[in-house]
Amino acid sequence: MLKGIPPIISPDLMKILMEMGHGDEIVLADGNFPAASHAARLINGNGHGVPEFLTAILQFFPLDTYVKSPVMLMNPVEGDEEPVIWQEYDEIVTKMSSCPIQIEKLERMDFYERSKAAYAILATSERVPYGNIILKKGVL
Amino acid sequence: MLKGIPPIISPDLMKILMEMGHGDEIVLADGNFPAASHAARLINGNGHGVPEFLTAILQFFPLDTYVKSPVMLMNPVEGDEEPVIWQEYDEIVTKMSSCPIQIEKLERMDFYERSKAAYAILATSERVPYGNIILKKGVL
Amino acid sequence: MLKGIPPIISPDLMKILMEMGHGDEIVLADGNFPAASHAARLINGNGHGVPEFLTAILQFFPLDTYVKSPVMLMNPVEGDEEPVIWQEYDEIVTKMSSCPIQIEKLERMDFYERSKAAYAILATSERVPYGNIILKKGVL
Amino acid sequence: MLKGIPPIISPDLMKILMEMGHGDEIVLADGNFPAASHAARLINGNGHGVPEFLTAILQFFPLDTYVKSPVMLMNPVEGDEEPVIWQEYDEIVTKMSSCPIQIEKLERMDFYERSKAAYAILATSERVPYGNIILKKGVL
Amino acid sequence: MLKGIPPIISPDLMKILMEMGHGDEIVLADGNFPAASHAARLINGNGHGVPEFLTAILQFFPLDTYVKSPVMLMNPVEGDEEPVIWQEYDEIVTKMSSCPIQIEKLERMDFYERSKAAYAILATSERVPYGNIILKKGVL
Amino acid sequence: MLKGIPPIISPDLMKILMEMGHGDEIVLADGNFPAASHAARLINGNGHGVPEFLTAILQFFPLDTYVKSPVMLMNPVEGDEEPVIWQEYDEIVTKMSSCPIQIEKLERMDFYERSKAAYAILATSERVPYGNIILKKGVL
Amino acid sequence: MLKGIPPIISPDLMKILMEMGHGDEIVLADGNFPAASHAARLINGNGHGVPEFLTAILQFFPLDTYVKSPVMLMNPVEGDEEPVIWQEYDEIVTKMSSCPIQIEKLERMDFYERSKAAYAILATSERVPYGNIILKKGVL
Amino acid sequence: MLKGIPPIISPDLMKILMEMGHGDEIVLADGNFPAASHAARLINGNGHGVPEFLTAILQFFPLDTYVKSPVMLMNPVEGDEEPVIWQEYDEIVTKMSSCPIQIEKLERMDFYERSKAAYAILATSERVPYGNIILKKGVL
Amino acid sequence: MLKGIPPIISPDLMKILMEMGHGDEIVLADGNFPAASHAARLINGNGHGVPEFLTAILQFFPLDTYVKSPVMLMNPVEGDEEPVIWQEYDEIVTKMSSCPIQIEKLERMDFYERSKAAYAILATSERVPYGNIILKKGVL
Amino acid sequence: MLKGIPPIISPDLMKILMEMGHGDEIVLADGNFPAASHAARLINGNGHGVPEFLTAILQFFPLDTYVKSPVMLMNPVEGDEEPVIWQEYDEIVTKMSSCPIQIEKLERMDFYERSKAAYAILATSERVPYGNIILKKGVL
Repeated sequence: MLKGIPPIISPDLMKILMEMGHGDEIVLADGNFPAASHAARLINGNGHGVPEFLTAILQFFPLDTYVKSPVMLMNPVEGDEEPVIWQEYDEIVTKMSSCPIQIEKLERMDFYERSKAAYAILATSERVPYGNIILKKGVL
Repeated sequence: MLKGIPPIISPDLMKILMEMGHGDEIVLADGNFPAASHAARLINGNGHGVPEFLTAILQFFPLDTYVKSPVMLMNPVEGDEEPVIWQEYDEIVTKMSSCPIQIEKLERMDFYERSKAAYAILATSERVPYGNIILKKGVL
Repeated sequence: MLKGIPPIISPDLMKILMEMGHGDEIVLADGNFPAASHAARLINGNGHGVPEFLTAILQFFPLDTYVKSPVMLMNPVEGDEEPVIWQEYDEIVTKMSSCPIQIEKLERMDFYERSKAAYAILATSERVPYGNIILKKGVL
Repeated sequence: MLKGIPPIISPDLMKILMEMGHGDEIVLADGNFPAASHAARLINGNGHGVPEFLTAILQFFPLDTYVKSPVMLMNPVEGDEEPVIWQEYDEIVTKMSSCPIQIEKLERMDFYERSKAAYAILATSERVPYGNIILKKGVL
Repeated sequence: MLKGIPPIISPDLMKILMEMGHGDEIVLADGNFPAASHAARLINGNGHGVPEFLTAILQFFPLDTYVKSPVMLMNPVEGDEEPVIWQEYDEIVTKMSSCPIQIEKLERMDFYERSKAAYAILATSERVPYGNIILKKGVL
Repeated sequence: MLKGIPPIISPDLMKILMEMGHGDEIVLADGNFPAASHAARLINGNGHGVPEFLTAILQFFPLDTYVKSPVMLMNPVEGDEEPVIWQEYDEIVTKMSSCPIQIEKLERMDFYERSKAAYAILATSERVPYGNIILKKGVL
Repeated sequence: MLKGIPPIISPDLMKILMEMGHGDEIVLADGNFPAASHAARLINGNGHGVPEFLTAILQFFPLDTYVKSPVMLMNPVEGDEEPVIWQEYDEIVTKMSSCPIQIEKLERMDFYERSKAAYAILATSERVPYGNIILKKGVL
Repeated sequence: MLKGIPPIISPDLMKILMEMGHGDEIVLADGNFPAASHAARLINGNGHGVPEFLTAILQFFPLDTYVKSPVMLMNPVEGDEEPVIWQEYDEIVTKMSSCPIQIEKLERMDFYERSKAAYAILATSERVPYGNIILKKGVL
Repeated sequence: MLKGIPPIISPDLMKILMEMGHGDEIVLADGNFPAASHAARLINGNGHGVPEFLTAILQFFPLDTYVKSPVMLMNPVEGDEEPVIWQEYDEIVTKMSSCPIQIEKLERMDFYERSKAAYAILATSERVPYGNIILKKGVL
Repeated sequence: MLKGIPPIISPDLMKILMEMGHGDEIVLADGNFPAASHAARLINGNGHGVPEFLTAILQFFPLDTYVKSPVMLMNPVEGDEEPVIWQEYDEIVTKMSSCPIQIEKLERMDFYERSKAAYAILATSERVPYGNIILKKGVL
C-alpha cells in the first residue's frame, strides 16, 4: 500500500490509468458485460460495484474537455428501464470534476464497438443492469 | 457471472482454487503483506478485506483433515497485539467446516517462508495488521 | 476438487465460463469438429460426450434471454439425418432453464463461421454426427 | 479423431506419451492429488477415472522391464484402507502386458517427490482415495 | 516409441494429426516447397520422402468423403512434366482408403494459397519436383 | 498524466512501488551501478539523479519502522571519500518521514548482494559516486 | 554509462535509434500524448521535457534530406495557441543540422495516425501543450 | 565453426537460408535501409558490406530460374547516380550461377513493399547508397 | 534446400551444430532414449537411424582433439550384448576424421547425466538397442 | 546508422554495453569458443575478428580501475603457443585507455567459468586460437 492511493486501485489498474493519454478511454464494465472478449487490456475488479471505482479513479483521472461528452453510458434496450444508479454516477462525476460534464448515451451495440477500441476494460461485479460507464481521459 | 459463484471470486481465483490438491496451501494476504515478492502465483484481491474472501472461498474449499492445523495465522511480533479480527476468522472457519478446526500460529519469518512455498497468494487490502491467513486444502 | 463443482469441469473450462459475458458464445464441439483450427480459445474435453458437458455447464451458465435462440445446432447436409441426440439436448436445456428456450439450426458453413467468432470451443469426443451445439450466455 | 486412437487420449496426452523414453515416468493422479503444484508437465484428464486412462495408455505404452517394479502406488497413511480399485489396476496392467508386472507401493511423501520428478502428471477425476498410479516407460 | 505408431511420425506430427478435424487440410511439402513461409504450423520431416509419410499418415487419417477430391496435387507449370511419383501416391491412397478417392490438381499459385490456409505443413525432403500433396481430413 | 502523481514516476515505477509490501526493498542505483545484471526487476530512470526520485517516491512510500535502519547506503572503498550528496539524502528522508530514520552503511559487496535480493532496481543517471540508496518498505 | 553517450539516452532508446533506417520516424510525445495506445514500440522518458531529448538525439540522428520536411509538429486545435516552445525546437533542430530544415505542421488527428505508423514513440513528461514532435531519419 | 561454412554466415542466417523455399526472397539491406521496420525476420549483419555476404550466400543458395529476374536492385531516385558497386554484384552473381541471370530494378517504394513481403532481411553495414539487393530462391 | 547441405540436416539441426563450440557435446539418441526429458535443446530426427545422421554431421563437425575420446557410447547393462552397429559407427567416425579417434564407453546412468549437460540431443528412431552416441566438438 | 557509432556495433551490442555497470564483464569470444552454451546473453559478431570489436568497443567502454586487471586472456594449454595477436590486443587496450592497464591470464577452465558469469558474450569469428578476451567495465 502507498500513502494516498485508495486500496481499491490495484497496481495493474494504476499502471493502466497512468499509461492512458489524451483521448484514450477506459470502460468500467458491470458484472454481465462481455469484458474478456472485448478488452484490449483487461483488469480484474471482481467483487466491487462501479461507484467505488468511479470515485477512486476520478480522484486521479482528468476527463477530456475537448469533446462534448467525456462520459458515456449504455442505453437500455427496449423493454428495460433506465437504471437508478445513473444518478449516482452523475453525482460522482459532478463532484469530482472542476467543470460541468455532459453524459452521452450509446446504443448497446455501439457501446460494445467502442469498448473494443478502448484502452482497457475494468471488469467489476456491479449488479445493476446497464451499470457500464466509459471515461475519456483529458489533459493536465 | 455464473449461478452460484459469488462475484468476489474472479475467474483467476477460481481456477487456482480448482487446480489446488491435497496439501496445497493458499495465502490470504493483508494489504501490507509482501505478496508480489513471495508469490509463486499472485491473485489480485485489491479493495477487499480477508473475511469476505474467507467466507466465499470456504464455501467451495475443503480444509485438510490429515494435519493438526489446516489454518495458519501470523503471530504478532513483540510489542504488537493479537488482532481482534482473528475471532471473526475463527467463527467463519468454524461455521463453514463440518468438523472442528484447530488454528496454528507461525512466527513472522516462518509465515513468509511458508508463503513462498504456497501454491498461490491472494493479495487483499485487509487493513487489520496481522490479518494474513493460510488455508491448506483437503480432500473430497 | 471443490465442493459443488462437477469433476468434468476442468479449471480451464470454469475460468472460460466465468470470463464470458452477455452475448458471448461457447461451442461444445463433437469429436469430428475442426476445433483447434477454429477456436479463439480451445478447451480439452477429450473422452466425453456432449450431454455430460451440457448438463454440467448449464448448472452454472445462464442462457441469453435477449435473443430468440440462445442455443444453436448444425443442420445436417443433404443426405445425412437429423441426429436422435438432439432430443436429449433439448431435454437437458429445457430442464436446466427457468424459461422455454428456442433452438436454432445453422447451415454447416455458417456454424463454422460462428464458431470462429465464439469465445471458446470445448473439444469433446462426442461420436454422434452433428453433435455440436453453441450456447450464448445471458445475464444474472 | 484418428483411426485406432481411443478418444480419451487427447492430442496433448499422446504427444507426451510419445516424447517419453526409457525410464521416464507418468503419474495418473486421482482427483485429490496436488497435480498442478507437482507437475513438470500437466495434462487435463478431468471427468475421467484412472482405469479408463490406464487401459487406453497401456495399449501403446511399454512398461520398463529393466526395473523390478515399473508400476507404483501410494500407500494409504495409517487409518486409511487399501483401495479396492487396486485390484482393477492390477488386472488391467496384467492383461495389457506381455510379461508379469510387479507393483511397488510408496509412502505418500515419497510418492509426491517421485511425482515432481516425473515427465508428466495426468490429472484425472478418479474419486477413489489412493487412486494414483505411476507408470515407468520401457523399450520397444 | 509407442506400440503401433510408426517411428517416422514424430510427437509433434501426431499431435497435429489428432488436432485436425473435419475439413482441415495438411500439406506434405517436397524439399523445394516454401514451407516455412506458408505454414500456419510447420513440422520438420527433413530427410524423408513423401511416400513414407503418406503411408504412415493414412494408417490413422480418414480422408474427407464429403468433398469430390480430398487429395490435391500441384500441376506442373508449362514446360515441366507430370512426375512419375504421382502414380505411387495414387496407389498408396487407394490402398489405404476404404473407398475410391479422386485426386484434384491445382495450379501452382492456387496450391500456395491453399497451403497458407492449411492447418499445417509437413516439410519433407522429397526430391521429386511437384512432389507436394494436400490431404483433407474426414470423419470417423 | 494523473492528478497528484509527479511526472518523474513512470507507470512501471508506480506499479512496482504499489506491488511492494512490508520488508521489500528497492534500490535507487547511480549511473555506474551494475543495475541490469543485479536486478530482479529493472526500471529505467535514465537522465535523472537520485534526489529527484527520492523526493517523489517518499511522498507515497512508507519506510519500515520495524527495523533499525530502513535506509541503506554503499560505503566508499578505501581511498574514496564519503559523498556530499548523502547529506541531501538525509534531509529528504527526514523531511518526508514522520519519525526519525537511521541510515545504515553497507560494504560494496554486501550492497551488491542485497541489491540482487531487492524487489526492484531503479537505474538512475546519478553522477555522484556512491550515490546508491536502498529503501525498505513499511506498513500503513 | 558509456563515454560520449548522454545519460538521458537509455539503452532501449539507443537501440531503437540505431535500428531505425531511412524514412523511419520517431515521436517525441509530450506528457498528455496517448503514447501507450499508439506506439508500435514505446520508450519511457518520464520526468523529462522534449528539448533535452531533442538535443541528445540529434547529436546522433541524421534527419531525412530526401523529403521536404523531416520534422513535424501537431497544429493546435481551434482556440488553443501555438506554443512558444516551438521556437526552442526550431533552434535546436537548426543548430544540430548541417543544412536548413523545414518543419511541417499536422492536424491533431493526422498526427495521431502518423504516430501509429512510427517506428517508436518516446513518452516524455513535457508539460507544454502541443509539445509533440516527429523526426524522420535520414542517411549517412 | 563448421567445415565448409564461411564464418560470415551466422547460425541464424544459415537457418533462414535453409528454411526458405522456391520463390521466397531475402533482402541484403545496406546500412541505411529501414530493415528493422520492414523485416518479417531480421538478421544482424552489422559491420559487413553486401559483396562479402553475396559471395558467401550464393555458394549455397540456388537462384530462381522460373522467373525472368531472380535478383532485384533499388533504382536511384532522381538526382542520385547508379552505384558502381552494382557491377561487382553482377560479377558475383554471374560467377556463382550456372546460367546467365537477369537483374531487375525496382523503384524505391516498390522495393520497400517487396522487402516487407520477403522471408527475411539481412541488415548489413554496406556504405554505398542503393547497395540493397533482393535474391529469390530457386530449386535444387 | 541448399547446395551441399544433405537433406537429413534440418535448419534447426544445422543452427545447433553451428552454435556449438569447443568442448560442447551433442547426443545422437536412439529411439528409446529419454530425449525430451534430458535435453537442454531437443531436435526432431524421427524416422531416421543414427548412421545416416552420423555421416551427415561429421561432414561438417570437427571432433575434439584436446581430449582422449571425443566420441562416447552407452555400455550395455549386464545381460545385454554389445550392439553390432558400433562397428559401423567406428567406421564412419574413422572415415570422416583426419586423425584416429578413440571411443569411450560410459555406464548407462553416467551417459544420462552427460546427456543432460550436452548442448543438444537429436532424437532419432534408431531401433538398435544401445545405439546412442555422443560427439564432442573440436576446433577449426 | 547513427553519427559517431561505428557500423560494427549492432543495436543489440550497444544496448548490452550501455546496460553494463561497474564490475560487469563482457567476453569477446573467438570463433571456436563455446559461446552459445556459456552465454547469459549472446551477441552475434559472426565474420569479424576480435581486434575490430576491441577498437570499436573501447571507444565507449571504460575499463575498471578498481581491480588489478580489468582485461583477461585465456592461457594456452600445454603444447599450444601464446598467440601473436595478444600483442595487438595489448596495443589497442593501451592506446584506448587513459592509464596503463594490466592484463591477467586465466586457465582455460577458469576462463569458461568466468564467461558463464559474464553479462554477455560477443561471438566473433576470430580465427586465431586463444583469441578470447574479457573486459571488465569501470566507472565514468
